[in-house]
Amino acid sequence: MTVATKAAGAEFVASRLQEYGELARLKLWEYLRTGRQPQNLYELAAEYPKRGGRNLRASLCIAAARCFGASTADSLDSAVALELLHNSFLVHDDVEDESEQRRGLPTLHVLHGVPTAVNVGDALAVLSLRPLLRNCSLLGGRLGLRILEEAESMARESVEGQALELEWRRANVTNLLPADYLQMILKKTCWYTTIYPCRVGAIIGTRDSVDLERFVPFGFFLGAAFQIQDDLLNLVGDADRYGKELSGDLLEGKRTLMLIHLLHHASGERRRKISQMLGLPRASRTARQAAWVLDAMSDHGSLEYARGVAHALAGAATHEFAKAFANTASSDARSFLEALPTWVIART
Amino acid sequence: MTVATKAAGAEFVASRLQEYGELARLKLWEYLRTGRQPQNLYELAAEYPKRGGRNLRASLCIAAARCFGASTADSLDSAVALELLHNSFLVHDDVEDESEQRRGLPTLHVLHGVPTAVNVGDALAVLSLRPLLRNCSLLGGRLGLRILEEAESMARESVEGQALELEWRRANVTNLLPADYLQMILKKTCWYTTIYPCRVGAIIGTRDSVDLERFVPFGFFLGAAFQIQDDLLNLVGDADRYGKELSGDLLEGKRTLMLIHLLHHASGERRRKISQMLGLPRASRTARQAAWVLDAMSDHGSLEYARGVAHALAGAATHEFAKAFANTASSDARSFLEALPTWVIART
Repeated sequence: MTVATKAAGAEFVASRLQEYGELARLKLWEYLRTGRQPQNLYELAAEYPKRGGRNLRASLCIAAARCFGASTADSLDSAVALELLHNSFLVHDDVEDESEQRRGLPTLHVLHGVPTAVNVGDALAVLSLRPLLRNCSLLGGRLGLRILEEAESMARESVEGQALELEWRRANVTNLLPADYLQMILKKTCWYTTIYPCRVGAIIGTRDSVDLERFVPFGFFLGAAFQIQDDLLNLVGDADRYGKELSGDLLEGKRTLMLIHLLHHASGERRRKISQMLGLPRASRTARQAAWVLDAMSDHGSLEYARGVAHALAGAATHEFAKAFANTASSDARSFLEALPTWVIART
Repeated sequence: MTVATKAAGAEFVASRLQEYGELARLKLWEYLRTGRQPQNLYELAAEYPKRGGRNLRASLCIAAARCFGASTADSLDSAVALELLHNSFLVHDDVEDESEQRRGLPTLHVLHGVPTAVNVGDALAVLSLRPLLRNCSLLGGRLGLRILEEAESMARESVEGQALELEWRRANVTNLLPADYLQMILKKTCWYTTIYPCRVGAIIGTRDSVDLERFVPFGFFLGAAFQIQDDLLNLVGDADRYGKELSGDLLEGKRTLMLIHLLHHASGERRRKISQMLGLPRASRTARQAAWVLDAMSDHGSLEYARGVAHALAGAATHEFAKAFANTASSDARSFLEALPTWVIART
């Protein structure tokens, strides 16, 4: 692909994200403005959504549904339920990872304490049920229940993926392989970010008449490329645009593909030093140590390695796209989905 | 009521709790034994249920359903979903309250850290969806969805109640009235502990043909009496039987009815000293301070006052029972429900 067509692809994805994202945001406010007490709880639940975000997951769901012939109205509640759950995950993940920033501002637990943040995360998860129940009147009980079942499996995958990652940090595991990482992000990231939105879009568009397994490879490759790129941006991105503290992953001891590569290739003293740093409590890790690990990653080509894997995964996603969305007619929604693998690794 | 009939009532409640609780426990293990990875996550999810507990909420649901003519099999999934959600609440509440003991052993976050405990709580909430979805095949889509809608409202009440309580502690509010406390426990405790189980039992038993509002007064009075008794046991109960650290509520700064009474009646220096202690971080409060507050409560008759309110609420629950379960035939289940108000304030 030439630079010019890549740029055109990126612009097209951005314009679709703008369109689908706006639809999702409008609907999201309907569910967040509950008019209920305590006001404080619902204001805090709206805090992360208010800070922006692309609504990528909602956009994927809307696009997949359109691609299979559904109206946007039919997919909007499912899309918004997913965004509410995503925000619930973000609030709890930030507590669990002791993250300091989210979307350019301090995280919820930094602002309001862990107890309140845990409860706000719970509230967002509860709020995500309303649009899923509304689906049952909108789409009929059969489809509505199928989507609820999908949501339940997806949420289970997410907590399982989170458990894997937390355990690696808790036990200071330092002998992971790339395959371990890929399995973890399949569960933690890909299921809810990419696989589930496609599956739900297809359920709505086809009235649950298509085999959903075809979306697992496409969603996995796309979601994994997305996650690796996200982890790279955490290390070498533009802090203002990224919205989280730069190198926060290193301070949090997050087992990224780059760190796994480094631990595998660094030898002797260096490896020991990294393991030791990873064994410290988060508060005891310093920015200097993080910078030193980042240097070591550069030395060992860990960043280049991860970029290469992300590119390979994006290529695989492009390949799987044709199977996942076989027999769907040309449309803006289809072009958007097709352009996503290239976009996820090009974004800065 | 004579001492002898009270004792007979308590024995009868205990035997029914044993029977219903055992049915719930057996079913609970089915849902907890997922056979899925990571094993560690599901072992931790089973940790609190394994420690015992009466399965009071499940028993109420089973009894209410029986009372309205349903089979136990028809109510068991709903009952177990509630117990799973209850355990999810317990894990998150313990994190939020910085509690140290649960059911006689250290809390989950004390044993495994806050990050893991938050995720295990999330996993239990996800697990609670499975039996509710199973309901839809067992009872049909219409009833299954009605129960899901009830579950969504109930969970919303619970997070709202939790938000109220957390905010009182965060902002060190010391001018609460008994009515504030009752509103908070209506939302935090009564909805999921007593109101919801009755409503769901009635939905199942009557195929959703009875007005559910009648269960709000009964459930509120019963649940509030239960909560106040629970708070009293935290202060003056038998540590071995109670299962939580005695006076833990005082160390946690929990706004119980006794504390609200004390703050209202203590004057000058004493009131200032209590407010000041409540403003400290949990870790800075000492057992000596807690003992001093407990003494002050005795001085001001706060414990007696709370006992009196619990008795009045139990009386009101008994009165409301006749309306809530009007036109239901005599049965063990009905007698169990009728005896509960007396039981909740008599238990030690």
